[in-house]
Amino acid sequence: MSDFSFVGVPTPMIDGPAKVTGNLKYTGDLKLPGMLHARFVLSAYAHAGLSGVDASAALALPGVQRVLTADDLPALTPSSRARLMLARERVIFVGQPIAVVLADTPAAAADGAELVEVEYEPLNAVTSIDEALAEGAPLVWPTGIPSGAEDEAAHGADTGGESEAEDEEISNIAGKTHMETGDIQAAFSEADVVVERTFETPMVHQSSIETQGWVAQPNPITGGVTMWGSIQSPFGVRLDVADTLGVPESDVTVYGMPVGGGFGAKFGLYEPLTALIAATVGRPVSLILTRGEELLTTNPAPALRIFGKLGFRRDGTLIAMQSDVTADTGIYPSGLGGFAAMQFASFYRCQNLLLESTGVVTNKQSVGAYRAPTSPSAFMAVETLFDEAADKLGMDPVELRLKNAAREGDTAPDGGEFPPIGMIQTLEAAREHELWKNREESRKGGRGVGIAIGGWMGGLEPGAAVCKLNRDGVLQVQIGTADLSGTPTSFNLLAAEAYGVPPDKVRFVYSDTDSAPYGGGVGGSKTLYTLGNAVLRAAHDARQQTLAIAAEEFEVSTEDLEIVDGRVQVRGFPDRSIKLGEIAGKSMTFGGKYEPVQGQGRQAVTDRAPSFCAQIAEVEVDEETGDVNLVNLAVVQDVGRAINPMAVEGQMQGGAVQGVGWALYEEMRYDEDGQLLSGSWMDYAMPDAVQAAPIDTKIVEVPSVSGPYGARGVGEPPVIPTVAAIANAVAHATGVRLSQTPMTAPRVLEALQQR
Amino acid sequence: MSDFSFVGVPTPMIDGPAKVTGNLKYTGDLKLPGMLHARFVLSAYAHAGLSGVDASAALALPGVQRVLTADDLPALTPSSRARLMLARERVIFVGQPIAVVLADTPAAAADGAELVEVEYEPLNAVTSIDEALAEGAPLVWPTGIPSGAEDEAAHGADTGGESEAEDEEISNIAGKTHMETGDIQAAFSEADVVVERTFETPMVHQSSIETQGWVAQPNPITGGVTMWGSIQSPFGVRLDVADTLGVPESDVTVYGMPVGGGFGAKFGLYEPLTALIAATVGRPVSLILTRGEELLTTNPAPALRIFGKLGFRRDGTLIAMQSDVTADTGIYPSGLGGFAAMQFASFYRCQNLLLESTGVVTNKQSVGAYRAPTSPSAFMAVETLFDEAADKLGMDPVELRLKNAAREGDTAPDGGEFPPIGMIQTLEAAREHELWKNREESRKGGRGVGIAIGGWMGGLEPGAAVCKLNRDGVLQVQIGTADLSGTPTSFNLLAAEAYGVPPDKVRFVYSDTDSAPYGGGVGGSKTLYTLGNAVLRAAHDARQQTLAIAAEEFEVSTEDLEIVDGRVQVRGFPDRSIKLGEIAGKSMTFGGKYEPVQGQGRQAVTDRAPSFCAQIAEVEVDEETGDVNLVNLAVVQDVGRAINPMAVEGQMQGGAVQGVGWALYEEMRYDEDGQLLSGSWMDYAMPDAVQAAPIDTKIVEVPSVSGPYGARGVGEPPVIPTVAAIANAVAHATGVRLSQTPMTAPRVLEALQQR
Repeated sequence: MSDFSFVGVPTPMIDGPAKVTGNLKYTGDLKLPGMLHARFVLSAYAHAGLSGVDASAALALPGVQRVLTADDLPALTPSSRARLMLARERVIFVGQPIAVVLADTPAAAADGAELVEVEYEPLNAVTSIDEALAEGAPLVWPTGIPSGAEDEAAHGADTGGESEAEDEEISNIAGKTHMETGDIQAAFSEADVVVERTFETPMVHQSSIETQGWVAQPNPITGGVTMWGSIQSPFGVRLDVADTLGVPESDVTVYGMPVGGGFGAKFGLYEPLTALIAATVGRPVSLILTRGEELLTTNPAPALRIFGKLGFRRDGTLIAMQSDVTADTGIYPSGLGGFAAMQFASFYRCQNLLLESTGVVTNKQSVGAYRAPTSPSAFMAVETLFDEAADKLGMDPVELRLKNAAREGDTAPDGGEFPPIGMIQTLEAAREHELWKNREESRKGGRGVGIAIGGWMGGLEPGAAVCKLNRDGVLQVQIGTADLSGTPTSFNLLAAEAYGVPPDKVRFVYSDTDSAPYGGGVGGSKTLYTLGNAVLRAAHDARQQTLAIAAEEFEVSTEDLEIVDGRVQVRGFPDRSIKLGEIAGKSMTFGGKYEPVQGQGRQAVTDRAPSFCAQIAEVEVDEETGDVNLVNLAVVQDVGRAINPMAVEGQMQGGAVQGVGWALYEEMRYDEDGQLLSGSWMDYAMPDAVQAAPIDTKIVEVPSVSGPYGARGVGEPPVIPTVAAIANAVAHATGVRLSQTPMTAPRVLEALQQR
Repeated sequence: MSDFSFVGVPTPMIDGPAKVTGNLKYTGDLKLPGMLHARFVLSAYAHAGLSGVDASAALALPGVQRVLTADDLPALTPSSRARLMLARERVIFVGQPIAVVLADTPAAAADGAELVEVEYEPLNAVTSIDEALAEGAPLVWPTGIPSGAEDEAAHGADTGGESEAEDEEISNIAGKTHMETGDIQAAFSEADVVVERTFETPMVHQSSIETQGWVAQPNPITGGVTMWGSIQSPFGVRLDVADTLGVPESDVTVYGMPVGGGFGAKFGLYEPLTALIAATVGRPVSLILTRGEELLTTNPAPALRIFGKLGFRRDGTLIAMQSDVTADTGIYPSGLGGFAAMQFASFYRCQNLLLESTGVVTNKQSVGAYRAPTSPSAFMAVETLFDEAADKLGMDPVELRLKNAAREGDTAPDGGEFPPIGMIQTLEAAREHELWKNREESRKGGRGVGIAIGGWMGGLEPGAAVCKLNRDGVLQVQIGTADLSGTPTSFNLLAAEAYGVPPDKVRFVYSDTDSAPYGGGVGGSKTLYTLGNAVLRAAHDARQQTLAIAAEEFEVSTEDLEIVDGRVQVRGFPDRSIKLGEIAGKSMTFGGKYEPVQGQGRQAVTDRAPSFCAQIAEVEVDEETGDVNLVNLAVVQDVGRAINPMAVEGQMQGGAVQGVGWALYEEMRYDEDGQLLSGSWMDYAMPDAVQAAPIDTKIVEVPSVSGPYGARGVGEPPVIPTVAAIANAVAHATGVRLSQTPMTAPRVLEALQQR
């Protein structure tokens, strides 16, 4: 650590002051001349024919300018959720946009939307896996299921295995995956201990503080648009919007605005529709979802039913793993079920695997990515089964995991070999945590302590960065992605370290897709891991250019120069020095003889840096009510290198809090007609600060091969093991193993009563 | 020419459709939430004490939010015109801002400004060179003249020679320059023919269609601002504004908006004041000058009095050149007088030179750059004296010029040697023009034909460019300067040529100072000449990166690849090819293994590429009224390489039209009290399409050493020789030599009467 001046120093977010004072402008703050405010008219039925839309009352309202229905837009076939247009003839989920009211003010648009009369002819709907798979079930897509979304690819969700489309017959099954290695039947026969269980986790909503929202300004000359939005992937949205409008992506410009939380939900949703609406009316259009709309018509995590089964030898060797995942993905297909089946078996050594999945469409809003997609569910399955097996084997749960944990050289889920990874070091560090060491004392006190680990392969994407030196001696760093996880502060530290100035002499620049170097969407825990390298290279390049100018000024070699206190000086001759700003000035002036300092860094890191997070939960279970009280939570994570420990701890805590939500509180609940029952934050329960319990974080640093200064992705892992750790803690306290989330009091009570 | 696919093809402006349909947004179109509209209260006196400003009536007006005076702003000493703040205690020119009214609408601001009561104590003013230099003249700056503006440096206006500040005694003399080589007295004594004359040219206004205007949005977190403006030099303005606000330039962001004409006036004027006003009130502020304000309070060309004298041997050899320029630069000093003295003698071979200048301040608005600053005046002097000498020597005017013209290896005004230049080729091409060959026929028909040449050394400035490849196969080109001369279309051609795609597969991107590579201000005829190289390098770099990806895909060497029809293909194997967009796609996707294609080009060209324009004017002079009717005008110019001949011809025509304005129409006229008499476009006469006469253009191409594909700067030269050509034509028609512009009917009549 002492090798670094700035990397590793806990550093507050550089945009913190602007955020907490309200000076940072979000998408909803944008006002363009002539802008119309849009409000959807949303379907009240999960499945119905549309026999008429009467907008006359809405249009009579002062301020309402236009009401558009599908008939006003090109008849595009919506291939995926991110291409959903206004409903034509039929609605297939509650919350599906049927019409859009455009008005001079948000209030007029909202009032107008209330006045649009929609005539429905209600039809039977399927709102659960069982209904969807039942004989003679109503079909969500009677003429065939669209090819599906690739949105979640951005989160690193490889489905693995082959997709076997059901082309014999149209049904609600969107696809199946099957992956098998070794001889699973023989392995289970040989196993001394077999544990198995079916788990169910509901749709869970990302519920960022900032709702989704976009502004689109049409360009009548090119047919393209300029878009602003709360989006995780500006370059991805550019492509989606261009495709929808039928223009080259170069005629679409996307400004990634500050994002008030994304968590995977903001990889693209109504951008193409917003763009099309704006192009249709020829005016800028702002569409900012209300909280209710956010819950009703966006893209939560899928509901999963996971059958999991493990087989062990008596000595604890894992010899068989089976998962069979059925995913309820709402109206559109998704590869997430297959990914969950893979995740179940990704990080333990095992020769015999059978991993299967079935994707099912239902009359509910379709799904998207949510932080470590499907992994809280998949690891609930594998990690509680591990716990149960340890019980049966009479082994320490940590030792059982250590015995079977993946390590360098093992086969990774992507087929390659694991590089140096810290699964073992993370488990060992967790084992040393007081919370774990005192678990028997805790149980004696009526509590329970459980442990679990989660793994994440980490995403990859090429990207570039630019570093320019200004005349004030400031290094301006530019990358082309969004900010929703505090990475700019870490990039600042990287650039400062590599160039040789303090972080307050670095400025981070957000640019639009026209102006910015390419950068992928923010997701998959890949932003710092991949783009960090681009920033490092750009800063190094800028440093070399800076030194080259000074070398010419002083007539020395660049090797004889160093950057100290904002000056380039000749080593050993502090008197022979020149301010960085002066160097920039010589290259940024009329008649200057030096090229401007503009460092460039491009990267296409191709080796992943899997990262692991172990968590230890201590709970109290009220045997009379079933209420689970989370008393303590410890988060132990291998981050490779903590570039900014403050940001890393923030990610660890934030992920764990969301994990607590998965475990104990959050559920998108639908009634039998497909009506969302948890359609507001009054009904959709998220943990508050007290419910989240004290969270202790412990950073492990097993350097990655290719991350900047050894860093690994940090964002995803901490949400993964929380559900399992809490479930294992409940089992430790009560002997009861839960298989359904959220582990609400009624469910726990029922399990206790069946004990 | 046949070596090129796109360079040299006349190409319409890429932003033409957006401009002519009104879709392009200018600074005046900007509306920010909470924005206040500013209107200045301007001084009614050329010189007066300020005893009070009463804003109460203005503040009572609905919509008026604030009225600021100097007391509300930091007491900054305005070192130059571009740093002028609100007047304190004294006003020193008519049109000087005294207060600013900030209101919700432009109308309220204007009404409010009318209601602000200013109490003046009128003082004597100096409004001409003679008044300013008179014994006991009132002093514009009683405590000493500020150090002065360096604004015109951007236009390449080296003053040459030493500035001798008058530090003995405070006067209205801002500075003097003196440059002498050889023995000027002896040379004039030896000369067989000596011609001399004193010329006077008035202040002339750039008068773009779009007035000057800016919008500033303060950032309360950093203390900086974001600015939008109609400005020629975004990076220059960034520095000026940052200095004024006392923040690092990195905390100021400047968006160079589309510029509706600049011509040198828009290198910086009220940006720092606008920024300070916005920071003071904590709200966005828009200051858009009206046409009247534009004429009253901006920065026209200086009024010059030029004594010129040439000495020749009988064989036509030029042996002595003398210029003595007195420049009326308004309230602030300027190096433009010294530059004019230099320009007089820059492009003829001559061993004996005496070049002097005196800068004088007066109680008038101060001056700035205007297309080829001072050169229409300086070349009026030298080129009409050449004409007169040719008469006296009995030589053909073109032959006399050819005999003495500078050529490669001669000493250039910057002290170096001339590189390959086209002065001789330009004169030879002009000599072949029908208009010139038929000049005696024209005279017989009662007309006159005159010729003159103008030269321009050309500016230099480092800069950079970036070229990115998008997934639609489009190359996106980014530079960091403004557009006011159509260069983006030429950059498109350069990028297309160098990369290997047609121009419609190139997109040009305007970025703000945070996001853009460094680029200098647009002026000095240096944009294409210098930044064109950066674009070429960036496009070449992007091409190499593109080929490298394809080489890996096809497992061949990059040398075996070519770009044809939007695809990279293996030479000789058209079947083995890949679309450019597909290559981009492989580098811009989740898990991609190739670095994004992002070419970078930096340049610091240090050798100038002087360029020349000869013009031939045919006039009819009405001997009864003195009215000069321009019948024909031919413009012959060496542009090195016409990247886009359509743009080049547009520049040649536009420059010549402005030259016609200088020659025959335009004058900023002040009365003895310093009141501007030509304060509107009703009074300030510019040539209309009929008055500008048919203009024939002829392009000469003598390649430069360092310009892109041999190009030279194009913008400045065509305004330079027009005045002289028309004056020589008048002399040819009438025998009368004029020494004052504009050559209006009364002046010509007076000269005719004195004949």
